[in-house]
Amino acid sequence: MKTQHGTGQLPVRLTMVGGGSWATALVKILSENNVTVKWWMRSEADADHIKRYHHNKSYLSDVQINTRKVRVCTRIRDAFRDSEYVILAVPAAFVADALTGINASHFTDKCVISAIKGMIPGANQLVTDWVSDQYGVSAERMSVIAGPCHAEEVALEKQSYLTIASQDPSCAEDVAALLRCRFVQTTPVDDIYGIEYAAVMKNIIALACGITHGLGYGDNFQAVLVSNAMQEIRRFVDAIYPKHRDLSGSAYLGDLLVTAYSPFSRNRTFGTLIGRGYTIQSAQAEMNMIAEGYYAVKSIYEINRRCGVDMPIVDAVYKILYDRAAPTGEMNGLKGLLK
Amino acid sequence: MKTQHGTGQLPVRLTMVGGGSWATALVKILSENNVTVKWWMRSEADADHIKRYHHNKSYLSDVQINTRKVRVCTRIRDAFRDSEYVILAVPAAFVADALTGINASHFTDKCVISAIKGMIPGANQLVTDWVSDQYGVSAERMSVIAGPCHAEEVALEKQSYLTIASQDPSCAEDVAALLRCRFVQTTPVDDIYGIEYAAVMKNIIALACGITHGLGYGDNFQAVLVSNAMQEIRRFVDAIYPKHRDLSGSAYLGDLLVTAYSPFSRNRTFGTLIGRGYTIQSAQAEMNMIAEGYYAVKSIYEINRRCGVDMPIVDAVYKILYDRAAPTGEMNGLKGLLK
Repeated sequence: MKTQHGTGQLPVRLTMVGGGSWATALVKILSENNVTVKWWMRSEADADHIKRYHHNKSYLSDVQINTRKVRVCTRIRDAFRDSEYVILAVPAAFVADALTGINASHFTDKCVISAIKGMIPGANQLVTDWVSDQYGVSAERMSVIAGPCHAEEVALEKQSYLTIASQDPSCAEDVAALLRCRFVQTTPVDDIYGIEYAAVMKNIIALACGITHGLGYGDNFQAVLVSNAMQEIRRFVDAIYPKHRDLSGSAYLGDLLVTAYSPFSRNRTFGTLIGRGYTIQSAQAEMNMIAEGYYAVKSIYEINRRCGVDMPIVDAVYKILYDRAAPTGEMNGLKGLLK
Repeated sequence: MKTQHGTGQLPVRLTMVGGGSWATALVKILSENNVTVKWWMRSEADADHIKRYHHNKSYLSDVQINTRKVRVCTRIRDAFRDSEYVILAVPAAFVADALTGINASHFTDKCVISAIKGMIPGANQLVTDWVSDQYGVSAERMSVIAGPCHAEEVALEKQSYLTIASQDPSCAEDVAALLRCRFVQTTPVDDIYGIEYAAVMKNIIALACGITHGLGYGDNFQAVLVSNAMQEIRRFVDAIYPKHRDLSGSAYLGDLLVTAYSPFSRNRTFGTLIGRGYTIQSAQAEMNMIAEGYYAVKSIYEINRRCGVDMPIVDAVYKILYDRAAPTGEMNGLKGLLK
């Protein structure tokens, strides 16, 4: 770290990439601390609105933006200039597009924090792996933000918890300190790959929960589905990145629970529409939002062609979304495999 | 087992002890198979109503009782006569009372199935340990029914799963076969103590979830609470009965989830009332039902005086319910211990 942060110190300089609800929630959290944020978003209209009225009209519009600390901009190179940290908070499918015009030199000496719970489609890479490949950012300058944390509840200042994972303990601790505030507790850990993969998987499971809910299955079934999902996540993560880890931690189980059970979950809502008989196109149109699980299931399914892990839930969701298999039939088949 | 059950065989003869919703749901499941049930309940009025109108007016009143297979009675000795299996399905606090007039000789050659998720208050014993002590029933004739299974969803024939635990594999398999039907899958396992303790603990956790919900904490917090609870359950169960077990199984995690997240959960509802400021007496009066977690937390807290396991969630619930500590203060303290 180049700058000490804290009272009487120079503020930490951050770039936030993304104008959605999670980015807005993170800006709110960061504004509690001694930081300045250059906040990049694509939409000129949203940026202008924040400059004038100090809130994001499109997402979490109740959150007051402290424009003494936060400067909005729509040119990505401006946003990158002079910052020590870059937080990526756009859907995985749009991250490459958001970083158009940025090259490795712009990342020099910056720490990169991924707040994205998805994989780069096509490349089938974790966001951190992709950033490392594309921009040469080394592992000790890379971290991820995980944990059961709906942006909507951050907006309401409901007590929340974040887990910050990095292969470098001091990087994890620095980022944890940046995000710790009166309504957010943070814990630094080292299992960056396990946590990233678990975060990707949990969106697929939430989608599966939604599908079964849409089909009329009840709470008894969902509890069994989620239990079996935890075992499926463990099998996959252990195969792809073996390490001693306790999957009942907040960053794994907690994150799955908040996504699978909460009415705020986009993936669950998307799944529910599919279960009720919507086509993928009409479900996407209805929601007007990206469900990360839709892309994630393709990446995980394709990666697992190499690994051969037993993943009946991922397989069922993949077949429903990409092979146009009937949800009823797939879930009937899955039903017999759970216990 | 004395009798082969299946098509063309003599029906298996069971005694059901208890007239509540879980007993009613189990009677419905059993009636799908080749069994006869002598169903004991305390209330003469409920028994008469079932005989005349073929449904339990007090619980799950939509469930049709097949009175060709099910005979209702209010004398416990009549209910015990000639049966091969006894299923206990009354709240733990009432089991001794329900069995008044029954002694060890009445249990001779019978298999005992506990469908109770609680501990005998005062004795602080698991139901199976208590039955073994009181009536000399040996471990290989004892099993428990566990799993995420709300009676209300069984009534609706929603797909459900039960886990049957016994130290004797053939006992577990026999009971699993009795309860398997077109809408219930069953799995026999051997970890009877782990599953019983986890089932007791989950009611306490559901109570804690309710309290925090009543206090205004959100989904983010609950997901962290449940994750930490899984770790607390593991510490306790491993201390009291060490064994290799996967707590992400349906009988452990699944059972916790359905109780902690479902609107049907009595323990969660009871906790919510406490969190909203009801006294214990007024919450109990409001619900007109026993929340097992209320008694369970006292038993577990007292047992843990010997074990000394770190159990901040159990401690907080105990202090709120038995030391009249303010929920706000206890949960504020707990908040800092979670991660």
